[in-house]
Amino acid sequence: MSAKENPEVNLIFTNHVAQTLDEVVERMNPSSVHVLVDVNTEAFVLPLLQAESKAVANAKVIRVKAGEMFKNLDSLTSIWKQLGETDANRKSLLINLGGGVVTDMGAFAAATFKRGIAFINVPTTLLCAVDACVGGKNGINFNGLKNEVGMFRDADLAIVSTLYFNTLTSQELLSGYAEMLKHALVCSPQLTKKMLSYDVTNYNPDSLLKLLEESVGVKQKYVAADREDRGARRALNLGHTIGHSFESLALERKSPLPHGYAVAFGMVGALVLSRMKFEFPSDILNAYVEYVRRHYGAFEISCDDYKRLLAFMHCDKKNDRPDAINFTLLRSPGEVEINVPVTDDDITAALDIYRDLLGLP
Amino acid sequence: MSAKENPEVNLIFTNHVAQTLDEVVERMNPSSVHVLVDVNTEAFVLPLLQAESKAVANAKVIRVKAGEMFKNLDSLTSIWKQLGETDANRKSLLINLGGGVVTDMGAFAAATFKRGIAFINVPTTLLCAVDACVGGKNGINFNGLKNEVGMFRDADLAIVSTLYFNTLTSQELLSGYAEMLKHALVCSPQLTKKMLSYDVTNYNPDSLLKLLEESVGVKQKYVAADREDRGARRALNLGHTIGHSFESLALERKSPLPHGYAVAFGMVGALVLSRMKFEFPSDILNAYVEYVRRHYGAFEISCDDYKRLLAFMHCDKKNDRPDAINFTLLRSPGEVEINVPVTDDDITAALDIYRDLLGLP
Repeated sequence: MSAKENPEVNLIFTNHVAQTLDEVVERMNPSSVHVLVDVNTEAFVLPLLQAESKAVANAKVIRVKAGEMFKNLDSLTSIWKQLGETDANRKSLLINLGGGVVTDMGAFAAATFKRGIAFINVPTTLLCAVDACVGGKNGINFNGLKNEVGMFRDADLAIVSTLYFNTLTSQELLSGYAEMLKHALVCSPQLTKKMLSYDVTNYNPDSLLKLLEESVGVKQKYVAADREDRGARRALNLGHTIGHSFESLALERKSPLPHGYAVAFGMVGALVLSRMKFEFPSDILNAYVEYVRRHYGAFEISCDDYKRLLAFMHCDKKNDRPDAINFTLLRSPGEVEINVPVTDDDITAALDIYRDLLGLP
Repeated sequence: MSAKENPEVNLIFTNHVAQTLDEVVERMNPSSVHVLVDVNTEAFVLPLLQAESKAVANAKVIRVKAGEMFKNLDSLTSIWKQLGETDANRKSLLINLGGGVVTDMGAFAAATFKRGIAFINVPTTLLCAVDACVGGKNGINFNGLKNEVGMFRDADLAIVSTLYFNTLTSQELLSGYAEMLKHALVCSPQLTKKMLSYDVTNYNPDSLLKLLEESVGVKQKYVAADREDRGARRALNLGHTIGHSFESLALERKSPLPHGYAVAFGMVGALVLSRMKFEFPSDILNAYVEYVRRHYGAFEISCDDYKRLLAFMHCDKKNDRPDAINFTLLRSPGEVEINVPVTDDDITAALDIYRDLLGLP
């Protein structure tokens, strides 16, 4: 068995998911097992696991609707209810089988049901594997705000595999890969070059699993240093300030931008600012831009959009000062500067260069 | 200032509440202060604190309905909403001003709003001071079940005082004092004797504050040994197995029994069983029964009720075996035995003796 265990954070990277689950569940010896799915993972992933894993075959199935718009209080309430109806008690185990919405809600439900039961995350998307299932953040959207309600609690275990990615579209793979590129950029030149020479849309399950393990390792390092996201962990915000403003603008245009794409484009802006402020190396900037152009295309903006984008950035909850916006920037891959105040003029200049680099008119 | 700080658990025992609050809030330097009240504490306690505490005078007031029946998802949702509407952010502080319902819900809301903001509990009832605001348990009732949803998180600070007890009825004082008697019984003969010679219905604010500090100290010791209530903390279940069955029977009779009264009566049964099983000293049993008769009276049961009471006990969630019920019992005050299996016959015998001791026909 190729499973590799990290005792500190309860993460296993393996493509033998069913076997690993059965071993772990046997060791945990819960009084009952419940598995949370959405309509997608119920159709495409649950049957595979039910066929191979005794623990899942015997588990009680809890269902929620699929998609970010159902990451809400109604779905959370429904999970609590279904846990009660399927006789979960304090010694029960919940397996969250799905993408970020399922693991975020399932983790929060488990962490609060009868004041906390055990849970295992089995991410079925690349984005969730690399991001949502590590770091202990969970929660729901509430009152129109993302992740307004939730908490920090690590899963008892996350089983990361690439087994179920064959049902993902190229767009979903690329969306997840953007976070892996981010981890590479805040880690080292070596990992950055390795990630930029890998075509995730044409992945091999074993090589991608190895890359995932390296990438998640980077996130863990930052999370361990700053569990509640008040300092060092802000390295992981690279690309997110401009990225979020792109996401918000795309929403206004009624053509939503996948989160990973927004981050990929936002990091172009962040690396441009990093070059302006800290002489970030141009060869890596160019290689990154080339990767984005080839795989992600471009998020189209014109100078008419700048005012709106700046307004979004000033609203960003991570911002404390009215006269400048705090960015996470890089001196070079792995050399992170957090809380760098950047003026509107500098951002405007960076957006001009973003358009040039991505060939926008 | 008589405040005494326990650095481990962030508890201050003082009757200088306003001054203490202002000092602590200044040190915490939150971006905003919000104070949660119910209609009772809004009318009787909030004005006093607003007059004396700058922090409370400037705080934004968040309101919930009063009473256990409103310890539910609707009230929780309303607190989250009001936190958002009063512009709370991750660096805000919530002060929970009330009894157990307010501190349980306020703590859960604060622990989950934006993945957790700081909160201070200021209990205004004896029961909350001695019990609910220590130990980190919070939550709401859900789906007809008590505390079905919640978590463990310590308050950043609890300020325990006897200042606001003058609005409590004798029944409310005695209900809280039952938990103090319980703490004494699981602690030592000395503390038991001291508590049994104190008339809480005729209390002096300073002497009661000192007793409270001793009593809460006992709870802290057990909680520290077993934060998530899986072993040693079960000492604190003394009297609760029979007590809960009395509460349930009283509910069926449509004349609810205050929780503390149920515990006081339940402990008579538990001490009788302790005498039967472990030769618990008869002088202390008699002194305890005398205190209960004088102050609490008796919960009336006849042998016709035994079957129903046993059924309630078998349903109790803390019970794992069908052929016996697990009790927390005492060899003597402070010498606790948890998970003692007791047969229906022994319980029946104990209920007979309970009726004798309390002078029931």
